[in-house]
Amino acid sequence: MPVLLASDQAPTLPELLRVANTVGLDCKIVGATEPMPCIQGVGSLLSAGPVEISFLSNPKLHAQLALSKAAAVILTESVAATLPANGPPCLRVICSQPYLMYALLAQWFDRHRIDQLACGVHPTAVIADTALIAEHVSIGAHCVIEAGVRIGCGSRLGPACVVGTGSVIGRDCLLHARVTLYHDVTVGDRAILHTGVVLGADGFGFAPDPYKEPGAWAKIAQLGGVRLGDDVEVGANTTIDRGALEDTVIGNGVKLDNQIMIAHNVHIGDHTAMAACVGVAGSTQIGRRCTIGGAAMFAGHLVLVDDVQVSGGTAITSNINEAGQYTGVYPFADHRQWQRNAAVVSQLAQLRRRIQTLEKAD
Amino acid sequence: MPVLLASDQAPTLPELLRVANTVGLDCKIVGATEPMPCIQGVGSLLSAGPVEISFLSNPKLHAQLALSKAAAVILTESVAATLPANGPPCLRVICSQPYLMYALLAQWFDRHRIDQLACGVHPTAVIADTALIAEHVSIGAHCVIEAGVRIGCGSRLGPACVVGTGSVIGRDCLLHARVTLYHDVTVGDRAILHTGVVLGADGFGFAPDPYKEPGAWAKIAQLGGVRLGDDVEVGANTTIDRGALEDTVIGNGVKLDNQIMIAHNVHIGDHTAMAACVGVAGSTQIGRRCTIGGAAMFAGHLVLVDDVQVSGGTAITSNINEAGQYTGVYPFADHRQWQRNAAVVSQLAQLRRRIQTLEKAD
Amino acid sequence: MPVLLASDQAPTLPELLRVANTVGLDCKIVGATEPMPCIQGVGSLLSAGPVEISFLSNPKLHAQLALSKAAAVILTESVAATLPANGPPCLRVICSQPYLMYALLAQWFDRHRIDQLACGVHPTAVIADTALIAEHVSIGAHCVIEAGVRIGCGSRLGPACVVGTGSVIGRDCLLHARVTLYHDVTVGDRAILHTGVVLGADGFGFAPDPYKEPGAWAKIAQLGGVRLGDDVEVGANTTIDRGALEDTVIGNGVKLDNQIMIAHNVHIGDHTAMAACVGVAGSTQIGRRCTIGGAAMFAGHLVLVDDVQVSGGTAITSNINEAGQYTGVYPFADHRQWQRNAAVVSQLAQLRRRIQTLEKAD
Repeated sequence: MPVLLASDQAPTLPELLRVANTVGLDCKIVGATEPMPCIQGVGSLLSAGPVEISFLSNPKLHAQLALSKAAAVILTESVAATLPANGPPCLRVICSQPYLMYALLAQWFDRHRIDQLACGVHPTAVIADTALIAEHVSIGAHCVIEAGVRIGCGSRLGPACVVGTGSVIGRDCLLHARVTLYHDVTVGDRAILHTGVVLGADGFGFAPDPYKEPGAWAKIAQLGGVRLGDDVEVGANTTIDRGALEDTVIGNGVKLDNQIMIAHNVHIGDHTAMAACVGVAGSTQIGRRCTIGGAAMFAGHLVLVDDVQVSGGTAITSNINEAGQYTGVYPFADHRQWQRNAAVVSQLAQLRRRIQTLEKAD
Repeated sequence: MPVLLASDQAPTLPELLRVANTVGLDCKIVGATEPMPCIQGVGSLLSAGPVEISFLSNPKLHAQLALSKAAAVILTESVAATLPANGPPCLRVICSQPYLMYALLAQWFDRHRIDQLACGVHPTAVIADTALIAEHVSIGAHCVIEAGVRIGCGSRLGPACVVGTGSVIGRDCLLHARVTLYHDVTVGDRAILHTGVVLGADGFGFAPDPYKEPGAWAKIAQLGGVRLGDDVEVGANTTIDRGALEDTVIGNGVKLDNQIMIAHNVHIGDHTAMAACVGVAGSTQIGRRCTIGGAAMFAGHLVLVDDVQVSGGTAITSNINEAGQYTGVYPFADHRQWQRNAAVVSQLAQLRRRIQTLEKAD
Repeated sequence: MPVLLASDQAPTLPELLRVANTVGLDCKIVGATEPMPCIQGVGSLLSAGPVEISFLSNPKLHAQLALSKAAAVILTESVAATLPANGPPCLRVICSQPYLMYALLAQWFDRHRIDQLACGVHPTAVIADTALIAEHVSIGAHCVIEAGVRIGCGSRLGPACVVGTGSVIGRDCLLHARVTLYHDVTVGDRAILHTGVVLGADGFGFAPDPYKEPGAWAKIAQLGGVRLGDDVEVGANTTIDRGALEDTVIGNGVKLDNQIMIAHNVHIGDHTAMAACVGVAGSTQIGRRCTIGGAAMFAGHLVLVDDVQVSGGTAITSNINEAGQYTGVYPFADHRQWQRNAAVVSQLAQLRRRIQTLEKAD
């Protein structure tokens, strides 16, 4: 579960490993007997059935191996060595990186589904004469492609996407339904943009305008753009604002989950990954290969070095100059216990003074 | 205010109570004189005028009773007993549950508005030949219904909804404008889905791919789906991701407010209600009848039992095995006072040691 | 960078200052020589080239003045006095408010771009017969305008906007692509609404319905509307819910960033500005001229006076009766240091008792 391919379309196990293994992982079938099983899908150890392949990458799930009904299981050599000779009936696929091999298999099965989607430009799409649409591009129903847009070969837009004047989408991108690019936004190759993504809305910039009324604001028009590198994925309803004067920049291989907010002029380094609901305020620079937990917040105008891990919910309010993990959410508690402790939080400075007094008296 | 019905369409008070009271609540008009007033709408105690009905459910508002200009007020017997004999001129509707009665009345007036909306399939909607659309279904302008979709009797889709391949929508659902279902998403009966809702975007899953580049990520295609039970409501711009291998599951009667993020493989038990801006990380299981305050966050792979209340803004970072209320947000303060206390928070461990030293010396 | 106008469209510096300075700021060119340069765009001190104008408003950037290649720089008289006589080659524009002058210039250049957008009603828009569309209104492709809608002179709707029954949009508004108004929403003049904005979705209101099942909820239909004043800007994917019985009200000149959630019956006073990801729970009233940092949260039914500043990430859980700055996020730390301190947070009440014991013994 889920079984994805009809039995007459399913490859044999060796065929599957060959076609899916696009990065050349080491991969060896053990305990194999002819005829090889056909594999219709991929599942977890407990859910996979006799026409599916599974994998063990989390050591905590080792005990599930004996219970698995999968046709074959991907595991490391060292895990395989722990199995009794008369062990689980499933075939074993020995691989140094079972989790990566599973990723490749899941991609292969999903590509089958994608290849069956409708192709070509839907007649209800509204496309400006000056837009340059490369070959093998699909444009879904009710899309709007404005003047001067360029879309690279093999890219695929779901229904109701809007691509603003002068924006550029690279090759082999996948825009799901209802993605919006404002004008002058650039997206690299192989991007995956999910429904509700908004690239290039105005950054939040205002100057006080006392000439109008005390407290009134004058809008600072946002003249910069947004640039996404290659291999970027952006989750549903995430927004990335355009820069004030220069661009907001997202590096290669960056992965952003849903409902993230990236403000104007932020820079995010290559391969950084952010879980959902993160907010990054204006002009902050985040390094490469950082991992950011869900609902973390970043103040504006900060600089974070490469290889920083930020725990979920943490508010980052100053620069981080050293790689490492940073945390800031204090533990929750039963409400009554919390009430007792919360009252003390607002007295901490006073408490410290009382300790100092005691120390002097001592 | 708001007056909802024209006077010639307004029912008399007894008629209204009869048609709106679909659950058979006890309900008795006191102080009634013929002819009965016609009721054109429902309002709060202070805003309702002489053609509207109001209610008292919050004891704090008791003093407003004497000031109300409403034609009739719903209240409990015990509240009615407190009123002077020559008390407020409005009629009294005695009911054991005034708040529920108000809910039923508001539903009845709103249904009038909904019944006047356009029906049928709009000619600009793009509907695949293999989609199965039941009778009495409305599909708004610019909707896109893909192959193999099934939509149950009496359901109503606002403009610009997208329903992906193979997804299923039950009976009597209400999808407001611009709701998006990816492929293989299942929605039960009587769902209400608000604008910007995205069901079935990819969960956030990646495996390290050192074969490509240090720090690079390989996408884990998300092969599971999303399943919503019956009577679920989902607020504007809320996103519920599809599962990695199995489904993300939302129980019957679950109510989700706006801008909530439910990650892949989360399970939410029946009748649990979440206020806005909550984030739930992957594979976490939340029990039945829980109430979750706004902007609460849940780490991944947790298990929470039934009947848990989480206060707004609280970060839940470990399992909860016992019903009850849990809280974790420490109190805000005037900025200077906060500065003094915040400095101490980072010295708490050291402070405890100083107390220990003093205790030993004592 | 970005150069915005072709050289044959660029005004001379004095012309530009005259046409852009719509509020009558004091503004004087110093060190001017004929012929005056033509200005094609605006840039930061370091990025602006010899056909662009720049500005200095942040004293920290003073050192960049000497390095700027801009044609002209806007600065205050006192900053200009610090420059050596043979100082930077760029022309100096003396102005008491360089940041506001920059805002006006950026607006002027952006208006050029907007004036080139397509005008008129796109043939794919679906517009009800009873809608009243004023003169000089643009309606983008695939918009849906329902019955009884009114749109004021000079307003411009991007592609795929949906305006529900009876809603009203004022004059000179700019709705970017894919903005949704439910029924009976009112928007004042000169509003700017970004992609994904949802005005008027149902507030989150339910009454316990034990008649159905223990824990079940009955929906409270939301009969109020949403009212936005004049000069309001709302960022991408922000949601403002309709009121339960009365309206949710946003004052004149209010500026809301992206992904903000305003719940039912909230009132926000004139000129208040909120950074991204803020959540305001139901019926809370926020005063005029407040500034709210990103990801701040507000509990429901609170009252905040005018001129309150709330720091980013702060949870406001009680009324604020005095103007001033309020903060509540405790500082993050290196993960190990955090672990040591976090353990003490749950013992604070106990710690205080131990100090009391020591004090008595002393």
